[in-house]
Order: sequence, then structure tokens, then C-alpha cells
Amino acid sequence: MTHSHQPEQSDLGVSGLSVHSEAPSPADADQEQNGTLPVLTGMWKPDPASAQPLHRQIAAYLLAKISSGAWPAGMRLPPQRELCRQLGVNRSTVVTALGQLTALGLIEGRRGGGTLVAEMQPSSGDSDPAAAPAEPGRSGNWNDYVEEGIHYPNLPTVQDINRLEYEPGLIRLGTGEPAPELLPGAAMNRVLAGLSQRILPPLSYEEPLGNPALRAAVSRMLARSGIAADPASILITSGALQGLQLIALGLLPRGSSILLEKPSYLYSIHAFQSAGVKFSGLPMDGRGLIPEQLAAEAIRSKAAMLYSIPSFHNPTGILMDAERRRELMQVTGRLGLPILEDGAYQELWLDAPPPPPLKALDHEGRVLHLGTLSKAASPGLRIGWIAGPEPVVRRLADIKMQSDYGASSLSQLAAADWLEGGYHEEHLGILRGKLRDRRDHMLALLQHHCAGLATWNVPAGGFYIWLSLLHSAPPRKLFTAALRAGLLLNTGDLYDRSDRRHLRLSYAYASAAELERGIPLLAELIKRG
Amino acid sequence: MTHSHQPEQSDLGVSGLSVHSEAPSPADADQEQNGTLPVLTGMWKPDPASAQPLHRQIAAYLLAKISSGAWPAGMRLPPQRELCRQLGVNRSTVVTALGQLTALGLIEGRRGGGTLVAEMQPSSGDSDPAAAPAEPGRSGNWNDYVEEGIHYPNLPTVQDINRLEYEPGLIRLGTGEPAPELLPGAAMNRVLAGLSQRILPPLSYEEPLGNPALRAAVSRMLARSGIAADPASILITSGALQGLQLIALGLLPRGSSILLEKPSYLYSIHAFQSAGVKFSGLPMDGRGLIPEQLAAEAIRSKAAMLYSIPSFHNPTGILMDAERRRELMQVTGRLGLPILEDGAYQELWLDAPPPPPLKALDHEGRVLHLGTLSKAASPGLRIGWIAGPEPVVRRLADIKMQSDYGASSLSQLAAADWLEGGYHEEHLGILRGKLRDRRDHMLALLQHHCAGLATWNVPAGGFYIWLSLLHSAPPRKLFTAALRAGLLLNTGDLYDRSDRRHLRLSYAYASAAELERGIPLLAELIKRG
Repeated sequence: MTHSHQPEQSDLGVSGLSVHSEAPSPADADQEQNGTLPVLTGMWKPDPASAQPLHRQIAAYLLAKISSGAWPAGMRLPPQRELCRQLGVNRSTVVTALGQLTALGLIEGRRGGGTLVAEMQPSSGDSDPAAAPAEPGRSGNWNDYVEEGIHYPNLPTVQDINRLEYEPGLIRLGTGEPAPELLPGAAMNRVLAGLSQRILPPLSYEEPLGNPALRAAVSRMLARSGIAADPASILITSGALQGLQLIALGLLPRGSSILLEKPSYLYSIHAFQSAGVKFSGLPMDGRGLIPEQLAAEAIRSKAAMLYSIPSFHNPTGILMDAERRRELMQVTGRLGLPILEDGAYQELWLDAPPPPPLKALDHEGRVLHLGTLSKAASPGLRIGWIAGPEPVVRRLADIKMQSDYGASSLSQLAAADWLEGGYHEEHLGILRGKLRDRRDHMLALLQHHCAGLATWNVPAGGFYIWLSLLHSAPPRKLFTAALRAGLLLNTGDLYDRSDRRHLRLSYAYASAAELERGIPLLAELIKRG
Repeated sequence: MTHSHQPEQSDLGVSGLSVHSEAPSPADADQEQNGTLPVLTGMWKPDPASAQPLHRQIAAYLLAKISSGAWPAGMRLPPQRELCRQLGVNRSTVVTALGQLTALGLIEGRRGGGTLVAEMQPSSGDSDPAAAPAEPGRSGNWNDYVEEGIHYPNLPTVQDINRLEYEPGLIRLGTGEPAPELLPGAAMNRVLAGLSQRILPPLSYEEPLGNPALRAAVSRMLARSGIAADPASILITSGALQGLQLIALGLLPRGSSILLEKPSYLYSIHAFQSAGVKFSGLPMDGRGLIPEQLAAEAIRSKAAMLYSIPSFHNPTGILMDAERRRELMQVTGRLGLPILEDGAYQELWLDAPPPPPLKALDHEGRVLHLGTLSKAASPGLRIGWIAGPEPVVRRLADIKMQSDYGASSLSQLAAADWLEGGYHEEHLGILRGKLRDRRDHMLALLQHHCAGLATWNVPAGGFYIWLSLLHSAPPRKLFTAALRAGLLLNTGDLYDRSDRRHLRLSYAYASAAELERGIPLLAELIKRG
């Protein structure tokens, strides 16, 4: 299977990006497939102080890549401009090096532009008549398999974002994680110092459901939000994202369909679609999902479940009010519709605590509740959880055991100490204050620079402002133009494939100074259309 | 989809286990599905000092389980004997408590034995005529979904093992991980102490391929085994098991088939089968895979790849010799057949270093190489890697980003320091000496107690001895009988579904004293047949 039939992706097409290029310019002629920016190593550079000429160092380096199989036959080389940028040399040096490799028959130009690693003669070229010949057109290297497999690739824009987040100098206006300065550096170091004096026995595997002390701590934490879930009802996951993956693989048959808010975070990942699950998007108003519309669509689509982010919705920031939550539980109860509640942001209220989670209203085992430490404490711990009926979390634990044999014990131990030591509650208080300031700062900047260009909500919590442009703009073009201006954007199409007039802004990542540079630049881009 | 069509599993049937029961006895009449032992919480017990009678405490506890939805309608309760064991009370107490719940209509007996949580009246029982009625027979709770989903459950025996490993008192004769006393407690604590003074910025997400310092350290480590893989060719995974999952989802189309040794570790997990990939097992001799047989089967089955564990094979302990490795590379080269090399055990040589890995013989990008820190350093770090062609590891990294957004940063930082600080090499030297003693001890015990009952290999590394019984024995029966005797076994059918005469023994986990008790007990069981 190739990914040509990836859902609703065809309109994104192929487009070239050139970040930080000395000469901002239109798309390079030779592109990597999928329109994503090609990657070199990001580490090696030729040594100008060496006696060996730069072009010879580069040729030797590329030769090593090819002869080790790291760049296998059929692989496209990065465009020349990109090679120049990454190796820090000028074009003639790269052209000379590539010429040497071409002369050796190691690389070759191809019709339509671009350069490929050439097919080599089989290294085992002895002519044993007993051995079968290789299938024609089959090199036997793994590169032939890159477009195979049942799991969809990320959207090109998401692939670019995942990589560009590690390029220094970009202002990240949409990043859904706390800036490093919002993370609890000193407190986490105290947790580690405690661990370093304590672990015994050291770092074995944990039980399938996860470390018991951590599950007990999560249970107590959930109780404070009104959720009764004892440790046997809780599965520790490697982040909430893994919870989604486990549910997609473990609970839903191929061909089922699920209801969800539209736009939704879930559109930006492919966990469910790769498992053959279809989406049925529902509209929201300022109070969240609209129960009547949900009922009609549930019946029409024969939905297997509802996925919802009731508190500080990603990407719109909407908070579902208490009455809607009750209505939603009633309507879905009558429909016999289970709910997957994503509570990733519920702790991050800024003005007042949100109403109790849907799980707190559930007495039938109809709600699975996802939570995470990534949004407040530390994304890098990769610790999340699923609370739900015991037979269900055991089924998911069994798949987790087959996926990665459990989350990092080190992370689980650190997370247990983090929660039990009171660090988490203390940190949340500090974090809320800082996020409130950041939100207000971003709102003020939007008022100053974007009034007349867009409208937006005032979120009561979470990370996100959903910017509605007054005029639509092709998202990939906007993304690319922004990148040239030094801005990394999360365009609305990531959360609703047909969207052409929204941006997800986040006040959690960029600093005040970056926002002060970034928002006016963004306004300029929107103005230019 | 239900799991009734799980591959080759029907012969395992349903059987009841009763561990540590005061009265070892035949199978309970009411069983959990799949023949696995039911789980309660393992934490709560009634308080004999309380003024409230035990049966009332238990009834209140179970009521809370049911009314919170943790035990949803339709869920089977654990058998009475199991409830007694776990709650530490006698049968009449449990019977009284269950009687109270039955009287309330909360649980009900069912034909064929067993007790289910009863369907409740919908909590949202108001009669809004606008709402659709629930589908008949659909409760809407997640319990209905436990047998859905495309991912196969673990084999019942594997599920039992995964859970029973946390029951104290069992002698684990087949566990494929180092005993806690073989793990580097003090050295890992030094690594953590170092981290606790250093991390800044704290625990953010890492790059899609993984932490750069860790990739550089793995690259240097691989170089010592003859593998040229620079950091851009390496993906850090959450254990080597996740590498298998990513390859199954990312590189192989549904319906492809793969070659592998038979028996193989890969038969004991369902990563590939759940992705719709078929297995084609190959025989081995004492030198590993037999190249001629491989060629014939590759052509017949149109295999997409070969999976192999050339060094200290799991479960047989076989070491593929250097000549076979060369032949294998030649034959697969002519066939155009890519290889997935599992190098989990290659560092753990006991007598002499093994020949260079297959990846060291690869110059075309035809081998993906898996490695891990779980077998020598710390299973709980959950750190492994895949080395291979850059476009391939980037594809896998993209799926990993969609699966769990990267491995724990804390684990990655600890692993980098572990490798770079020289701890790993130092620990390996110590570990090899201890494993050598353990191997020799187990071999001596086998010689003393099992000669005439079985034959076995003398492994030159890794963890495993593959015990060949002279007479076949039904594996599930042997497993259950062993459990009653206090032994946890890994039966041969986990690694070759049709096997009825092998056991995978491991000298890595059980202590000398446990082996001295366990091997004679095992010999007794084998003798009884």
C-alpha cells in the first residue's frame, strides 16, 4: 500500500521549503517526497582548517553514507541548496563533490530533476547457479519499503513542524507544550536527587498496569477532580498520545466510526485512521458540543464512541459548561454511546476551575478518561494515564505490554515522587499565574495588531487561542511564507482538513519578546493574504 | 472482530489456575475468558479490627466498584475462591457479601456458572421523547469493546506470565531478563545523581530520532561491534520491542509474509500478526539458519523480509557462526531480501565474542539492526534503537512520533550518561562473569536431575537453554502443574505454536538457591508427564 489514498490529504500537495536560506527563494526544483524538507545529519561539517580541500572532505563523507548503506540505492539526495546550507559551503564546492560521485557511478541525476543514489552491482556478485536471481526492479534494500506499512505518515506540515522545532531561531506561535522556562527545573532536579539515593531494586520492568505507587498517586489526584478510580482502574501510558493509540488498536474494530469535535486535535494524528477508523466531525458553539446535533449524527453514522476534549479544547480553547456536560452524558447514555474524554488540559484553568470531568458523572463505565503530566509538569517524562473499567484497562495494558513492555520505570518513579511529594500542586499554582500573564499578553498583542484581520476567543484555560481569519488563506502557503519570516505556525487544516481560515495560536511556548516580534509579523502575513 | 480467529491458538483452551491457593485444587468452575487468571485489585483488604463485619466491608467495597463503573455491567466477577484468596477471608464471608449484592440486583448468576455485574436501569432514565433509545443489547459501556480492536491479545500463557511475575514466591525458570541483583544498582544511582545536578532545560520533548547525545553514544557503541551507523541512521525506541512494532506498522503492507527462525521470540508477541503479516518459519541447525532452505522458502512464500536473532538466539541460545552469516548475506543479497537483525543478546557473550553482526556485513542498506539496553543495563529504562538507512529510520521515527511522541527524555539522558560514562562496558564485564557462573550452575543441575528426561544445548552467551523433553507434554497442562508447584515456566509453544516438547530455561533470573529447588521440582513434573 502506498499512501496515495491517505484521507483528505491530496490538497496539500508538494511544496518546497527553504528555511534560513541565505537567499530566500522560490521552491527548489528537486524536492523530497511528500513536500517535507529533506534532512541531512545536522551534525557533520567539513573542516576548513584541514589540508584536504572541502569538496574532497564532502565527497568522502557522502561516499561513506552510500557505502555503509545509510543512503541506500534509490534514495533521493537533499537538494544542492540544502546541502550547501547544512554543510556550510558554497554551491560550487557541492557541485564538485557531487561530480566526483557521479563520475564513480555512485549517484545519478534523474528525469524531472533531483539526484538519486545509484543502484550498485550486487556485492555478492558471484554467479552461484543454485541461487535465485533477485526479482527485477527489487534492490532488496529497506528503502523500497518506506512507503509501505499500514500506518499513515504524519501530514507533511506536521512532519515539518516536528523537525523544525529543533531548528534554532524560529518563533513558535502554535506549539502545544510549555516553554522550557515554564517547566519545573529545580523541583524536578530535587525529585531526581531523591531517586538517586533510593532506587532499590533498580529499574526492572513494572507491572502491566504500571508502577503501583504511581497509580495510587494518580488515583488520589483524580479523586480531587471528582473521579472515583482506584489503582486497579488506572493504566499508566507513555504519554496520553499512547493512550489514543492503544484504544485505536485495542477497542475499535476496523471500519467503525467515531464522533468528535471538529476541529479537533485528533485530526492532526493518524492513530485512529491508521487502524481503519472513520471520523464524523461535530460542530461546537461557545459552550462546547451541541447535544442535539450529536444525537442525530451518532444515529446516522452508527458511531462506536465519542471523543471529546471538554475542558480547554485543543485547538479552539472552548470550555464545555456544566449543563452541556450533563446533557451530553444523558444523550450519550440513551444512545448507548461510550465516551473517550481527553482531560489533557483540565488542570490548566486560568480563571476558575472547570466543571467536573465527564468521568466524574459516569457510574456505568461508559467514560474512559485520559490524563497526562506532559502539559503541566514535564513533556519529557512521557507519562500519561487511562482511567476506566477494569476489564478495559487490562485489555489496553495487554496491548501496551506488546507495544513497548511498559513506560520507563525511571519516569514512573519520578512521576510518583513528583505527585506524592506535593510538587505537582505547588507547580500548578505557579504555572497558572505565568500562563495567565502570557495569555493576557497575547490577547493584547492580537487586539493591537490583528483587529480587523481576524477574530478570536478568550480562553479560560489551556494553551490555545483559535484565530479566525476574516479572509481565507491557503494553509500550506501561509505556513511556508511564515517560515521564511521566521515563524512556525500551526495552521487550522491540521485540525480540520478542509479549514482555510484558522490558526491555532499558543501562548505557552513563545516568550514575551518573541510574541512582540512574532504577532506583528503574523499580522503582516495575514494582510498580504 | 472477536479474537476467535487468533492464529493457532485454539488448542490452548480454557483452564483454571489457582496460585498459592491454600488448597491446591482442580480448575474453578467459573473462569475468566481466555483462560487467564482473573485479577482483583491486589491492594485492598478488609480490616479485621474494624467494628464493621468483614462481609459488610466487602459488600461496600464491591458496591463501590460497581457503582463507579470500574466493574461495568456484563463484567464477570472473579471466582469465589479467587475472591477469598485475594481478600484474605473465608468462603462464607464472600458468599454473604455476594448474597447482599445479589439481593440488591447488582450482580447475578449466569447459566454455566459464574457471576456477572447486572445491567442497571439507565441512570438518565427520564423519558425525553426526542432522544433515541439505546440500541437493544447495547449497554454503552466500554466492556462491550474488550474483544474488539485489531490488535490480538497476548497468548493466555503470556498474559499469565506477565501478571504472575509480580506474585511473590514463584521460582521463575524462564524469565528473559536479568535478576535485580544482576542490575547495576549503585552505578545507575551515580548516573541519576549526576543528572539531578545537571538537567537544564528540563525534560522537554526530544527530536524525532531521539536525544542527539544518546544517538552519538549508540553510534560509537555500534562501531565497536563493526557497524558503521552515524547518529542520523539511528532511531531511539522505547525498548527493542517497540522497534518491532514500528517496523510492523510502518514498513510492511498487510498480507506480506516474513521469514524467521522457528522457534522464535517473534512468535510470542503479536506485533506483526496484528498488522496482518504472516510468518514462515525456518529450521535451524547448531550453526543457525540453513541458507539453502531459506532460499527455497523465500521464493515459495514471496517473503518481504527475514527476521533473525543470529547471536544467542531467543529461545534456543544458538549462535550463528561467521560462515553462515556470510552465506546468509549472499543468499539474501541475490534474493533481494531485506533483513531485520535482532541484536538484543549480542553483547552478552560468555565464552568468546560472537562474529560481527549481519549489519556489519551490509553495505547496501539491506539490514535493519535492533539493539537494547534492557538485557544488560536496565530493562526499566525502556531504551532500544534501530540502525538502518536514513529514509527508513525517518519513516519509523514519524510513526513513533504518532505513537508516543518519543521515548522518555529522562531515560534517554540517563542512557546517554550510562554509555558515555563508561559504566556500560564496566558493567558488562561483571555481568558476563555472573552469567557464566549461573549458566554453569544450571547446566550442572540439569545434568544431575534431567539426564534421561531431556537434552539441552550449552549456550555460548545470552540467557537461554532450550530444553528438549524426550517425551512430549501438553504445554498448558505443564505450565499449570508447574505453577501449583511454585514454578513459572516459559513453555515451548510460546515460541512455536505447535511445540509440545520444549521449555525455554533462563539462567538470568532465578537465584542459585531457587535453581537448586526449582530444577529438581521441574524434573519431577517432567517425569510425571
